[in-house]
Amino acid sequence: MALIQAADTRTYNTSTDYAKPVLAAVKPREHEDSLALLRSHAMFSALEEDDLQELLHHARRLRLGHHQLLYRQDMPAHHFFFVLSGRLRLYRLDASGVDRTLDSIAPGDCIAEVMIYADPARYACFAEALKTSEVLMIPVKAYQDLLDTNHRYTQAALRHYAMRAVTRFHDLEIMTVQSARDRLIRYLVDLLPEGSEQGGEVELPLPKCLVASRLAMQPETFSRILADLKSNGLVRVNRSRVFISDPSKLIRISQ
Amino acid sequence: MALIQAADTRTYNTSTDYAKPVLAAVKPREHEDSLALLRSHAMFSALEEDDLQELLHHARRLRLGHHQLLYRQDMPAHHFFFVLSGRLRLYRLDASGVDRTLDSIAPGDCIAEVMIYADPARYACFAEALKTSEVLMIPVKAYQDLLDTNHRYTQAALRHYAMRAVTRFHDLEIMTVQSARDRLIRYLVDLLPEGSEQGGEVELPLPKCLVASRLAMQPETFSRILADLKSNGLVRVNRSRVFISDPSKLIRISQ
Repeated sequence: MALIQAADTRTYNTSTDYAKPVLAAVKPREHEDSLALLRSHAMFSALEEDDLQELLHHARRLRLGHHQLLYRQDMPAHHFFFVLSGRLRLYRLDASGVDRTLDSIAPGDCIAEVMIYADPARYACFAEALKTSEVLMIPVKAYQDLLDTNHRYTQAALRHYAMRAVTRFHDLEIMTVQSARDRLIRYLVDLLPEGSEQGGEVELPLPKCLVASRLAMQPETFSRILADLKSNGLVRVNRSRVFISDPSKLIRISQ
Repeated sequence: MALIQAADTRTYNTSTDYAKPVLAAVKPREHEDSLALLRSHAMFSALEEDDLQELLHHARRLRLGHHQLLYRQDMPAHHFFFVLSGRLRLYRLDASGVDRTLDSIAPGDCIAEVMIYADPARYACFAEALKTSEVLMIPVKAYQDLLDTNHRYTQAALRHYAMRAVTRFHDLEIMTVQSARDRLIRYLVDLLPEGSEQGGEVELPLPKCLVASRLAMQPETFSRILADLKSNGLVRVNRSRVFISDPSKLIRISQ
């Protein structure tokens, strides 16, 4: 049963500053929790028990330390990943060394699953752990084989990919907002759960300096805007938590 | 044969400034060209002749004038569209009336096809013709019915949706570049066809003021950057055409 690991024989296109993620040993209880999380994702929820076990047989559970890299930009993409715990960050590195944050991925979501039909399949960015994290490393080929055999699986995957494209379009849409303040407001309101018209609290999915990077602004700009919103009574901030008392007012001033 | 039209009985969620697109009459030669274009798209290339004809039977060919709207943001999305000729623009309208350009769609590509599994299915933006254009309006349901019956079709569609998500991620990535100049450079270099390392000419897919909007900058900023690049001999500009003599030099200065 591959969620509980034996040995890892794959080789990585390593570089000097790249520490290989270690295989994670798993207690039965953790294993059950991981299975439940996996089954809640659209790409796996339709799988029959036998097929899920077959997929897990090919998968490896990896543990990553804080700031440890899962993969590097432009590495061949033979695997995609399912986040079991912790949180990962996707980013690009420019030739000048500037690091741009693209996304943060929470437990229950996939990373690089869009690579299954890319040609050439190369990771479009870096992925690193923002804190101690565990991921399931799934060979693209093993998942493709399942899709080849079962129409229902392909339909479920199609549903996921269509929604992923919609989400990415939405992400892009926010980035076409010219004003840095309005981009940040849109980003914060988006983090609120459904039905938070009366206000609510959001947890920033990234450290503040990385939210700034994700929204294409300087950390100082981010701090200034947040301070302005605070002094106008529009938000309250407690470390990584932001309380929004009146989302509709916030949206109004951003337009 | 539905590419050549009879009558259009659908109703739109119309508003006062929304002129309904007109049905297009089609000459046999045009019809053949349209079919060839449709068959070149991943979502249709796998379709058997009978199935393609069945789909076309449900489709309507629409002609749009310059600036005419195809659909409005938040309208229920019962159809997706395939562009046969002309060019369309996707944009959002903020409450204050600010119009933000998100994408431009050329002949041979689809619009709103990611809506096939959205719930609720509502268009995420406006779509308008940038010049006289023709589109094929395809009921989502008719396409879904084809996917239900044929595994190969679903796999072909999955391939398209995965690539669409990759493209959108790439679009997002460019937008996380903080400097307006560097965003514009990345955008121009992206427009170059493959194998243009020795330089080449690109046609801006949007009027200059809309490229500025797409890249979240003021039209004046766009003009100033382009003038700078020109005066440094990095680009030559002739109306909507931009000649890049040394793409690698342009990329180097942007990093």
